Amino acid sequence: MHRPSVVRQLERIVGPENVLTAPEELVAYSYDATRLEALPWAVVRPGSSSQISDIVLLANKERFPIVPRGAGSGMSGGSVPVKSGVALSLERMNRILEIDEDDLIAVVEPGVVTVDLQREAEARGLFYPPDPASSAFCTIGGNIAECAGGLRAVKYGVTKDYVLGLEVVLPTGEVIKTGAKTMKSVAGYDLTRLFVGSEGTLGIVTRAVLRLLPLPESVSTVRAFFPDVITAVSASMKIASSRVIPRALEFVDSHALRAASQYLRQDIPPGADSMLLVEFDGPKGLVEQEAVVVSSILKGLGAVDIQSAFDERGREMLWKARRAVSPALYTVRPKKINEDIVVPRSRLADILVKIDEIASRYGLLIVNFGHAGDGNIHTNIMIDEAETEKAEAAVKDIFEAVLEMEGSISGEHGIGLTKAAYLSMEIGMDSLTVMKRIKKALDPNNIMNPGKIFPDEGDA
Amino acid sequence: MHRPSVVRQLERIVGPENVLTAPEELVAYSYDATRLEALPWAVVRPGSSSQISDIVLLANKERFPIVPRGAGSGMSGGSVPVKSGVALSLERMNRILEIDEDDLIAVVEPGVVTVDLQREAEARGLFYPPDPASSAFCTIGGNIAECAGGLRAVKYGVTKDYVLGLEVVLPTGEVIKTGAKTMKSVAGYDLTRLFVGSEGTLGIVTRAVLRLLPLPESVSTVRAFFPDVITAVSASMKIASSRVIPRALEFVDSHALRAASQYLRQDIPPGADSMLLVEFDGPKGLVEQEAVVVSSILKGLGAVDIQSAFDERGREMLWKARRAVSPALYTVRPKKINEDIVVPRSRLADILVKIDEIASRYGLLIVNFGHAGDGNIHTNIMIDEAETEKAEAAVKDIFEAVLEMEGSISGEHGIGLTKAAYLSMEIGMDSLTVMKRIKKALDPNNIMNPGKIFPDEGDA
Repeated sequence: MHRPSVVRQLERIVGPENVLTAPEELVAYSYDATRLEALPWAVVRPGSSSQISDIVLLANKERFPIVPRGAGSGMSGGSVPVKSGVALSLERMNRILEIDEDDLIAVVEPGVVTVDLQREAEARGLFYPPDPASSAFCTIGGNIAECAGGLRAVKYGVTKDYVLGLEVVLPTGEVIKTGAKTMKSVAGYDLTRLFVGSEGTLGIVTRAVLRLLPLPESVSTVRAFFPDVITAVSASMKIASSRVIPRALEFVDSHALRAASQYLRQDIPPGADSMLLVEFDGPKGLVEQEAVVVSSILKGLGAVDIQSAFDERGREMLWKARRAVSPALYTVRPKKINEDIVVPRSRLADILVKIDEIASRYGLLIVNFGHAGDGNIHTNIMIDEAETEKAEAAVKDIFEAVLEMEGSISGEHGIGLTKAAYLSMEIGMDSLTVMKRIKKALDPNNIMNPGKIFPDEGDA
Repeated sequence: MHRPSVVRQLERIVGPENVLTAPEELVAYSYDATRLEALPWAVVRPGSSSQISDIVLLANKERFPIVPRGAGSGMSGGSVPVKSGVALSLERMNRILEIDEDDLIAVVEPGVVTVDLQREAEARGLFYPPDPASSAFCTIGGNIAECAGGLRAVKYGVTKDYVLGLEVVLPTGEVIKTGAKTMKSVAGYDLTRLFVGSEGTLGIVTRAVLRLLPLPESVSTVRAFFPDVITAVSASMKIASSRVIPRALEFVDSHALRAASQYLRQDIPPGADSMLLVEFDGPKGLVEQEAVVVSSILKGLGAVDIQSAFDERGREMLWKARRAVSPALYTVRPKKINEDIVVPRSRLADILVKIDEIASRYGLLIVNFGHAGDGNIHTNIMIDEAETEKAEAAVKDIFEAVLEMEGSISGEHGIGLTKAAYLSMEIGMDSLTVMKRIKKALDPNNIMNPGKIFPDEGDA
């Protein structure tokens, strides 16, 4: 491949202003939220699926990798150009094309920022439930690539549950449509779901038909503190297995709570060590009643300083410490290894005990918080450089414990680079082979995002 | 292939009592609800996934087709052994292995009858929402193979929304597990969703991990009649786009209502031509209130004889005519062609007008009823033998109209045999090629259910 000539061809496809090759520009497309970095040798910013198709055809001819990119806020290295090649940024394809209030669907381009869709929907009395913590800057395309989850998954499910159809540029250049503008459709294999969560390895999503819901009338939030994290998550189990379905059910352990409290310069109430947040949505009378019922359940289970809120401002106050956990943790130790494990929720207390054992064994600080309602824990190993090796051994032990409990090593962050080495631990070699056969069938030249999901895939 | 020797090998795998070859026995495994028929040359009734793996390995060696079979209640010919071969009945693998009340999951074998799972769940205060009309006899394995829908999809989605994980015997004999026992998991491609709806062409499901919900406290049902079907479905739109989310929203047109009324020997109320059924579930006070609100909306839209029910017996009375439609239609004409189209629900009135035009043009009787809430219509062309050709032309016109409205030619019945010729109309040749490449990658010898979905696939 003669790189300058390829760059000229890319410029012909998208216009010279949309091909970047200056080192300082390349750096901006080299990393994601894992802080892993690898430089592409060019960045293209296409404006249409037909331009993307031309780029893909060129990549097959000249054999260079294409790494699709949304906001670069991924948590597993999915958009890091680890084999270099061309970073394909969807930033220009960021239009909300349609919000249909009768059929409750939205049609969007991949570069739409998640919160923009949420707001546009809400302005029409509609609701797009998936709510990753990065919703203020992550994009729908990235959410689809990684099958992002978030806070409301316990009631509403994850991104895949809201994708009715896609337009996808295949690794071989064809532009296809999958799914339909309807809730039901069984016309052949479910390609929509195959592309959702495929981390840019099977094609580039250029348009998505998303399902919306009516906006719930009202929301209530309950925050409670517990003397220890095991009591807190055991209480969350009691809520989850009762008849009420909260839309969020979050826990924050002792370390995370202290970090957030220092970060916010706020005191923790006396007797409080860990925190639980419960949120309901629905008709006003009902969510108020649910908050009362849950407060009384939590009180009976040993909670202290239980507070409820029914308006936006009050609710934001209760969420403050939970929201501060992620930024606060960056101040605790120089480095954190961020895992995203999930277990059947009845095993939440068990896995936390196990993680505590592992932390003691390796002499590591491990901080846990996350989505108690669906058993999804963000486990953060807080280290300095010298502890990296120990931390990696601890990660493997944690994954083994998770799999023993029939959980998953990645709840909502994907496999990407950081978990590729562990994937076969969970799914086994035969499933991995099936996935590789599908990858090969769709992307014979391994053009699309090579090095992700499958660690030993041949280079493009 | 020397058939008697293959039969002996099958007998060694599953035991002689579980291999059937007598003509009268083969007949029982030759048809489904489409009334299409084709004889297998043997039936096997395996009792485990390892037996199934051995059968599949033998099929690859001897190159015979395997046609998996649940209850034979499919609506698109999916389990009809159109290329003969071996019908593989899952009837012996019919155990509910686990219902976990803490994690709200069930683990079942494929031969479990859907209603048995529903009842077992309900006995524990839990809820398995997918509810195909054939739930009294269809099996979970068949539901998964076809991605069955049903009455409650408008609120709760379809089978795929409740499958967390699978055990699958691949077409090449390996036994893999997909998914996890958790709501969230993004460990590689979503193989679970790829197998759901793949109609037995990509493997044989031998175990399923299903998601359950808390059983709703209460149910309310409202039945109303309208002077014509367009007014009825327009009213259904008003409900669907308001803030309430019914769990069922069904319509029955004039022809279907008259057929049901004759079948039941019950009079239709004066001024009634078409019928709408609306059902809510949730907390008692709420569903009662929703029934009142909807009754008043329907009244304002011209409904007559509006009735509500809040207990099991009263609700069954209101459902009676709707449930009688399917059996009643078999008495109207010698033959019916049963389609299962779906359009964005705002186009429901448009497609019914169009179908009426098509019926007039061909001089055919076309009867419509179904799931107004999700735009899914069961369109029945009522004919005698002599009208078959005209009916087929009408089907093609209906499908064209559906696709023009961005709908789908199969909402919940699958493609199977009966819609294979039309699939490319909906998805296009490039998508069809992608599906075929996946099929080839997983089933290189085309052993699994050949002749389904892809009409021109090579024979095994």
